[in-house]
Amino acid sequence: MAQKPSIPKGTRDFNPEQVSKRNYIFQKIRTVFETFGFQPIETPSFENSETLMGKYGEEGDRLIFKILDSGDYLSKVDDSVYTIKDSNKLTSIISEKALRYDLTVPFARYVVQHQNEIEFPFKRYQMQPVWRADRPQKGRFREFYQCDADVVGSQSLWQEVEFVQLYDAVFSSLKLDGVTIKINNRKILSGIAEVIGAHDKLIDFTVALDKLDKIGEEKVKEEMLSKDIPQSGIDKLKPLFSLQGSFESQMHTLKTILASSKEGIKGIEELEFINNAISTLGLETASLQLDVTLARGLNYYTGAIFEVSAPKEVQMGSVGGGGRYDDLTGIFGLKDVSGVGISFGLDRIYLVLEELALFPETITKTIDVLFINFGEKEALFSLKAIKHLRENNIHAELYPDAAKMKKQMNYANKRKVPFVVLVGEEEMKSNTYTLKNMVSGTQEALNLKELINHII
Amino acid sequence: MAQKPSIPKGTRDFNPEQVSKRNYIFQKIRTVFETFGFQPIETPSFENSETLMGKYGEEGDRLIFKILDSGDYLSKVDDSVYTIKDSNKLTSIISEKALRYDLTVPFARYVVQHQNEIEFPFKRYQMQPVWRADRPQKGRFREFYQCDADVVGSQSLWQEVEFVQLYDAVFSSLKLDGVTIKINNRKILSGIAEVIGAHDKLIDFTVALDKLDKIGEEKVKEEMLSKDIPQSGIDKLKPLFSLQGSFESQMHTLKTILASSKEGIKGIEELEFINNAISTLGLETASLQLDVTLARGLNYYTGAIFEVSAPKEVQMGSVGGGGRYDDLTGIFGLKDVSGVGISFGLDRIYLVLEELALFPETITKTIDVLFINFGEKEALFSLKAIKHLRENNIHAELYPDAAKMKKQMNYANKRKVPFVVLVGEEEMKSNTYTLKNMVSGTQEALNLKELINHII
Repeated sequence: MAQKPSIPKGTRDFNPEQVSKRNYIFQKIRTVFETFGFQPIETPSFENSETLMGKYGEEGDRLIFKILDSGDYLSKVDDSVYTIKDSNKLTSIISEKALRYDLTVPFARYVVQHQNEIEFPFKRYQMQPVWRADRPQKGRFREFYQCDADVVGSQSLWQEVEFVQLYDAVFSSLKLDGVTIKINNRKILSGIAEVIGAHDKLIDFTVALDKLDKIGEEKVKEEMLSKDIPQSGIDKLKPLFSLQGSFESQMHTLKTILASSKEGIKGIEELEFINNAISTLGLETASLQLDVTLARGLNYYTGAIFEVSAPKEVQMGSVGGGGRYDDLTGIFGLKDVSGVGISFGLDRIYLVLEELALFPETITKTIDVLFINFGEKEALFSLKAIKHLRENNIHAELYPDAAKMKKQMNYANKRKVPFVVLVGEEEMKSNTYTLKNMVSGTQEALNLKELINHII
Repeated sequence: MAQKPSIPKGTRDFNPEQVSKRNYIFQKIRTVFETFGFQPIETPSFENSETLMGKYGEEGDRLIFKILDSGDYLSKVDDSVYTIKDSNKLTSIISEKALRYDLTVPFARYVVQHQNEIEFPFKRYQMQPVWRADRPQKGRFREFYQCDADVVGSQSLWQEVEFVQLYDAVFSSLKLDGVTIKINNRKILSGIAEVIGAHDKLIDFTVALDKLDKIGEEKVKEEMLSKDIPQSGIDKLKPLFSLQGSFESQMHTLKTILASSKEGIKGIEELEFINNAISTLGLETASLQLDVTLARGLNYYTGAIFEVSAPKEVQMGSVGGGGRYDDLTGIFGLKDVSGVGISFGLDRIYLVLEELALFPETITKTIDVLFINFGEKEALFSLKAIKHLRENNIHAELYPDAAKMKKQMNYANKRKVPFVVLVGEEEMKSNTYTLKNMVSGTQEALNLKELINHII
């Protein structure tokens, strides 16, 4: 009995239209990455387990897909260990490789491993799939692409400025106008925590603050209180919760709150530098906005924090994010490598472009012209023309069988072919091709040169 | 203690130059695929184990990378099974997913699963990595890309004709002149086996014949004899071993040998059809050659068999191969779907292009122009110009730090930047940019428009 075919949950097949649309996004991002001087690297799909394990917290470790060792892997397992029948213990013995969970840790590993071949500052981009054993749900997959750009080896704030420009350039080139690039700075969050007497509770504080949009001011305060942040401190947050207006006026408020925190003031200066530069340079279609609630789960950012929101008319959340980290490669033994990087959320960008009908129409057109097959001689005659068309980069195809006209025309319609060519006795005699426009229905007899010019 | 970073054996990191060179090959192949009317699909990196297992023979099953189930996978294992401590038995319980081993089986699964959305004949291409737990050796990796194009749903021999053209078009566009497209037909092999009384030993016969190039006539005969192919039959092969000359004259010899085999004659007719069409249509740089010893391990080909050899001056073996199969999707319950497909060997093509120095020089150039950073004001002034350059698709970069001139110029040299721009007090005053040609060493002061025109 034949198997009913299916794919693992959380994974996807992509049909030709979907691949074309995804490649359209990749290509736009790649082009901008390269005009900004980023260079592509690629790393293996699986890494040694010790490279990945312990880098994403306990939850992360659980979500990493482990690869079973080949051969008689149980022969390596001591009986005394085997009899315990403990999945975790066994895994560490029978699996030495794991699928990458993100592109950041493999990048850090790459930088350390190849440090002697790399020119620093190193501007790299990477667009590859990652895998997570997460519970699949709408918009969350077990296999998905990440598109990352990072610069390592420079603490210059010009990098942050350029990343704001880069986001603007990518989304502008995708014709996705009106995205908001939200920016914050870890030092500001530290400063606030310091000022409200929660310096040792920075993570609890930022995790709670990060939820402001979702659960509202009261609930955030409750959560902070439950984490032993003093009421007197929470009271000092009042101006923060109602922060609005221009970038500059918000900065002004923040300065007042953070006056006593050296670190906080440093964070403000960094933000001002970036904002001033962007004001001078201008953005095409995006806007830069301060968002002090922005913390982004991952707690390894040390300076700027970025997040990009889709235009308000689509309910999508963030379509990108990133930030500055001071110690990317320390885990692999290379100290003091500061970096800053950003990421694009391909799947969400895809959904947004789909919802706003921003994919160019030409994407769904797969072939430019189909030659109807009337028989052996006609097909050979057709292939001579097809060869020339293809050399002119026209996507041309011969229907492979001399099937009924109706069947062939039906195929042309289904594949949305704009032109078909009919070649019969008469055409072969006069060395012409009858071109039929599938939209208007008109037909005309053309020689090869005219044919090419008509379709191109 | 920090880990010394490494990657699993048989896998590779690709640096920017390597990625660019690989993408150059992918892009050439993709462009030709698309002008021939092929459409891209993508399938998940891992499939359900039952989709893959049993499709590649016993050896194949062993070489498939299995993914460990998440969570407490041992809780699913019955104690009575567990105590046997048998790796194979355990695998089937604790691993339900596996990394794809090739693109053919996932494609067959895709066709069956999506048969109602597909227009047949379906011309698809797919370029994705595959994984094999093979012993790594020179040129053989555990993760590598396959680039496949297949047509399913038509028995037309025009497909074979077009694949010969496609190979020619791809290698011509890669400027790799002089490849040989070898062609054979399974029906001819069957016919010969029939004629020499080895009809029930077709696989033994073809496996031995396939080795003619490597081990020579005598050893091939010995192997056949050892497989119980009668001496009288082997004697009939004499004309086969010395087959040479033009396609047509070889066909003539074959017809004599195969006169009594209906299937063999059918195979000859098919080859003649393809050869006649190609003779009429012509090839750009490749040549088509009959090779009756060509069998290609995989025994699922039923008609044409292709293999492409690199030009003789490089010792590389095949850079591509493929053929006609009559039942791709039967294993998944869809009968009578004939197909024909070919594949490109990316890694070998890469090595050949490298050896023959056929990669365009521009590939190693990563940025067009570097702006030297003399300080904050100068950097901001530079970024205004950089913005315009990038909009004109020029790859431009600002050195992020106001480091010593020597250090910045050193970086420019290491990255092989053809131009650097110097912006100091004077340039800002006169609104110009001093462009230095890194090859000739000459410098000139230019306004923005001139700068763009100079670099573009």
